[in-house]
Amino acid sequence: MASACLIIIGNEILSGRTKDDNLQYLAQRLGEWGVPMTEARVVPDIEAAIVQAVNECRRVHDYVFTTGGIGPTHDDITAAAVAKAFGVRLVRDPEAVRRLQAQYAAGDLNEARLKMADVPEGAELIDNPVSRAPGFRIENVFVLAGIPSIMRAMVDSLRHMVVGGAPIQSRAVRFQLAEGVIAKDLGALAARYPQLTVGSYPFYRQGQFGVVIVLRGTEGPALERANEELNAMVRALGGTPVQETAA
Amino acid sequence: MASACLIIIGNEILSGRTKDDNLQYLAQRLGEWGVPMTEARVVPDIEAAIVQAVNECRRVHDYVFTTGGIGPTHDDITAAAVAKAFGVRLVRDPEAVRRLQAQYAAGDLNEARLKMADVPEGAELIDNPVSRAPGFRIENVFVLAGIPSIMRAMVDSLRHMVVGGAPIQSRAVRFQLAEGVIAKDLGALAARYPQLTVGSYPFYRQGQFGVVIVLRGTEGPALERANEELNAMVRALGGTPVQETAA
Repeated sequence: MASACLIIIGNEILSGRTKDDNLQYLAQRLGEWGVPMTEARVVPDIEAAIVQAVNECRRVHDYVFTTGGIGPTHDDITAAAVAKAFGVRLVRDPEAVRRLQAQYAAGDLNEARLKMADVPEGAELIDNPVSRAPGFRIENVFVLAGIPSIMRAMVDSLRHMVVGGAPIQSRAVRFQLAEGVIAKDLGALAARYPQLTVGSYPFYRQGQFGVVIVLRGTEGPALERANEELNAMVRALGGTPVQETAA
Repeated sequence: MASACLIIIGNEILSGRTKDDNLQYLAQRLGEWGVPMTEARVVPDIEAAIVQAVNECRRVHDYVFTTGGIGPTHDDITAAAVAKAFGVRLVRDPEAVRRLQAQYAAGDLNEARLKMADVPEGAELIDNPVSRAPGFRIENVFVLAGIPSIMRAMVDSLRHMVVGGAPIQSRAVRFQLAEGVIAKDLGALAARYPQLTVGSYPFYRQGQFGVVIVLRGTEGPALERANEELNAMVRALGGTPVQETAA
């Protein structure tokens, strides 16, 4: 099964000023496309850090996505860093220039904005239906905007560039037993279904512990059987299983 | 200046089921302590992935924090993985056992729960004032719970283990000009203040672009001067700067 990695580029995430709002969207889409995200990184707006992360991740993963740093300001250095990572020149893409020309009045398309048409040589543009300035793909690296509304539109418009697999399905069951009570039987269930991942997610609210168990995999029948066993297990341990709709 | 890295351990983040709620809290505390977070990673509940991330990060950063995977279930493998990363044995810590004994009735302290007392040999416990099962520190690696309320309590209780520096201060100014309009002057301002980071964060709401500029650094007077220049710059470009209270 193919794997994907997200590199979030942005000092604002690492300083705690802003909460990332892109990982979840991309992860969910990739799950539907059958390309699980198996790693994510957050790196600062420093060229060497971006180059290193891109080069480490593109060698390990089938698909690498980056978010952030493709605007017109001095701290938007993603395109230049990705070009450096691939050892290619940064070039002004004529089609990207045309898109910016269609977006901005002639007097407003200054050099800073034209910088948004610079891509690594050989890159393919990724459409931006929101504000036109495109993202791009070079080999297995997809460079996307950081603004969530634009990032999401770009993800939706690059679907055809990703060769997916069987969609990852899931089931989730919630109940008010402590993890320590179910751990042994749950471990045995997980061992019986090596083709699934069985995750145990405790929560703690108002002094009460509860758990959500999430089953995940591409094999529908195994998922259904494991889900039935899980419900029976929770009832046998004295809990009341609630099937969650969004898993 | 010291640097810190967070390793978020959890399939549930990478699948998009759960949004991480720990990075921001840790990043903000570390900023106050003068130890900026300069990298974060999300890795799955797979031993080899955790071992690799811990070993790569602990060599590069002064402080490494992990969240998640220290409960009693089969997918809680952080302590064992960290022991492996350090090449030491996983041992049952007598003090951790005592804390669990104080928390659970004798009949309830089963083997799954006792697993929460297992730490890499030589580790120091990190207090958990919420549910007792401790985190731990080994050398520069701090292993914390994933449940946000517990994670936050652990962060607060490990303050004395971190040698901080000058607190990182910030100023933020918001206005309704497009990034492309301010990019040139902002780049010049950033160049005049190499001791500060100058971040430009566009937002896009209801068809309108706006920007927040964030100045960040440890030198108060420089920060104040740059902030005044920034306000003047925005006004000169036709914008109305609004000083944000939380930067």
